[in-house]
Amino acid sequence: MRQSELFTKTRKEAPKDEVSKNAGLLIRGGFVRKEMAGVYSYLPLGLRVLKKIETVIREEMDALGGQEVLLTTLQDPEIWQKSGRWQDDAVDIWFKTSLKNGHPLGVANTHEEALVNLLRDHISSYRDLPLYAYQIQTKFRNELRAKSGIMRCREFLMKDLYSFSRSEAEFREFYEHVALSYMNIFGRAGLGGRTYRTFASGGSFSKWSDEFQTICDAGEDTIYVDKEKNIAVNDEVYDDDVLAELGLNKERLVKEKAIEVGNIFPLGTKYAEALGLAYKDESGNVKTPVMGSYGIGLGRLMGAVVEALSDERGIVWPESIAPFRMHLISLGKNAESEKIYKDLSKNAIETLYDDRDARAGEKLSDADLIGIPYRIVISEKSIAEGGAEIKKRDEKESRVIGFEEILHYGKKNETMVK
Amino acid sequence: MRQSELFTKTRKEAPKDEVSKNAGLLIRGGFVRKEMAGVYSYLPLGLRVLKKIETVIREEMDALGGQEVLLTTLQDPEIWQKSGRWQDDAVDIWFKTSLKNGHPLGVANTHEEALVNLLRDHISSYRDLPLYAYQIQTKFRNELRAKSGIMRCREFLMKDLYSFSRSEAEFREFYEHVALSYMNIFGRAGLGGRTYRTFASGGSFSKWSDEFQTICDAGEDTIYVDKEKNIAVNDEVYDDDVLAELGLNKERLVKEKAIEVGNIFPLGTKYAEALGLAYKDESGNVKTPVMGSYGIGLGRLMGAVVEALSDERGIVWPESIAPFRMHLISLGKNAESEKIYKDLSKNAIETLYDDRDARAGEKLSDADLIGIPYRIVISEKSIAEGGAEIKKRDEKESRVIGFEEILHYGKKNETMVK
Repeated sequence: MRQSELFTKTRKEAPKDEVSKNAGLLIRGGFVRKEMAGVYSYLPLGLRVLKKIETVIREEMDALGGQEVLLTTLQDPEIWQKSGRWQDDAVDIWFKTSLKNGHPLGVANTHEEALVNLLRDHISSYRDLPLYAYQIQTKFRNELRAKSGIMRCREFLMKDLYSFSRSEAEFREFYEHVALSYMNIFGRAGLGGRTYRTFASGGSFSKWSDEFQTICDAGEDTIYVDKEKNIAVNDEVYDDDVLAELGLNKERLVKEKAIEVGNIFPLGTKYAEALGLAYKDESGNVKTPVMGSYGIGLGRLMGAVVEALSDERGIVWPESIAPFRMHLISLGKNAESEKIYKDLSKNAIETLYDDRDARAGEKLSDADLIGIPYRIVISEKSIAEGGAEIKKRDEKESRVIGFEEILHYGKKNETMVK
Repeated sequence: MRQSELFTKTRKEAPKDEVSKNAGLLIRGGFVRKEMAGVYSYLPLGLRVLKKIETVIREEMDALGGQEVLLTTLQDPEIWQKSGRWQDDAVDIWFKTSLKNGHPLGVANTHEEALVNLLRDHISSYRDLPLYAYQIQTKFRNELRAKSGIMRCREFLMKDLYSFSRSEAEFREFYEHVALSYMNIFGRAGLGGRTYRTFASGGSFSKWSDEFQTICDAGEDTIYVDKEKNIAVNDEVYDDDVLAELGLNKERLVKEKAIEVGNIFPLGTKYAEALGLAYKDESGNVKTPVMGSYGIGLGRLMGAVVEALSDERGIVWPESIAPFRMHLISLGKNAESEKIYKDLSKNAIETLYDDRDARAGEKLSDADLIGIPYRIVISEKSIAEGGAEIKKRDEKESRVIGFEEILHYGKKNETMVK
């Protein structure tokens, strides 16, 4: 895409009311716009990143055997009353609204009840299970405060997967598959090597749940990491009994600040029982499926990548989720840039082409801010030296390569956005 | 996909409270679930269709030079008060909610104000225009009644494109491009030959707007069609003056019921003026951009296809938006079906494989109900006759083809869902 046609512009400063680093950089780069605390619009560059994250997650969910659905935001109180999650004193983050006739409606913050109720139409036998359904859908949470940029929002895109199994053992086996799949997702999104499966409190359903925590100073959580065993313990459950149960040695643990980028929960039979979802086993006995739920906030993951990987000059996108693979920058008008841009486009290599009539300093600092992995600069100087200057976003020094070499750096991105 | 693994089941009857044909068939086929009047969940088959429609629309919007964004559902009243569209007596379809601190919020039913406000950060010069931005995003409308199935919903996915031009002439040129693009979209979605650009009332902004109307008995609108000139006039503006202005001859017009599948509106400068969006022209004079808005409801389009193309046995999907291209049905267990399914999968041909342990009659009537374009039946009889029986969904008779021919019917779908 030609940068002269991209409607967003970068800005030198983030808005004064933006306290988070992630949203600060994303707003400056023209990725998102803050509409109010915890509510962000996605602009073309930001939406490209969000869709690449979506593609990575969808591929992993499909590989697990997940079937994709799209549940509704508007929710009838009836099913939430059955599970005891309608009243504001039970769940304090509902946005509520109503139909013209006064009938109250919820604006969904999660979908256990909705999915369980829906599956009553489709599950009756042990042959219908196990079943894994997921969606990538906008959630609404009426947070009292929202100061973490796009990482804790009142409106946000979430992947929520739910599993329905015939026994605790069948559930556990799938739960472990999801845990591996989550590590794949965070690895593919660029957070590998700094993200740990972390034992955490299970809330009311289970002794434990598992969080996925990315080490980062901006994190709201404190975890204790065993870097050899590749696991961690959340501060909230950190005591001698838990360490003993997990076989962890206190002296090998490192205390770190971390961002929770995903979590997986055993749910037991609570929701299925409350809503009357049951099946008949091989002997004709009526049984209740064992559930699990598995969430990843897409904006939270995007925000975590910005927090963890940016530097003092701007964002550093991993290749897998970068809005473009190449940032081609023409300093001064030259025919070579136009030709290279056409070659890259012809080869379906995602390229942002800075063809703007702007100063060199502005173009280069915008490129650092936007954070595209490969920067290719073509100027009179580079042409005289034999080609183009290339530099990866996280490298200090550029080097000159021949024009014919540029395409070699441009392999197609696995999560290309059309 | 193996049908034995698809979690949805077909049903013989639609729910009693479902009066529309489109939702009746879609519920019976397991495409959607009715959560309440005008609120439908999309199940795996339905979501596949919706995503294909989304792909067709996105390709056409990108071809127009549209830049995709994702605006927010939660809306601060402030910008809507500026345009006079916050009060319920001005716009009577708002769902409203509020923050914990009592601050009122709107649940967006459209996005003119939001986008205009956002663009104030990015537009300042004539060089920033024209600008075309679109999104594919969920809208919420508090309809008093919602009885048209997935065609008129309280919650629905919509593509909304907005144009910002520097003059009426520049606006009109783009508007005509969009009109052509819309005819492409409806043609590609299977409604070609029965969808007409239709002159309609322009509301408060303009004398006329243009609707795209698909002839169908279930339509809520009445139009007068000139089939030679390929245009129509909505009943609401049908009078001698209008016909004269359009150069239409009353005697050549045919009165038809029709479904509105899209509309495009001139908006003039109303919203830009109300919200203070302006730019400087070449001479430094402050000007207001001329706007247009262009909508397509994705569920409405899907519902219209079901209304217009189904028969007494079920849905008839066009190849372009069908959930799968092939419905491979094994009658009785046979090794040939398994082998053909593997071949089709290896060739990335989207196939629903009915490997269920079910009666032949059930499998065949489910196939008619679900409406996948190519039905391939493999049975002892077909094998004895030399291969598989093939039948297009809209054909009466099947014929036997050799196994080696099946792949020829399976070209990759242009809008493949992974």
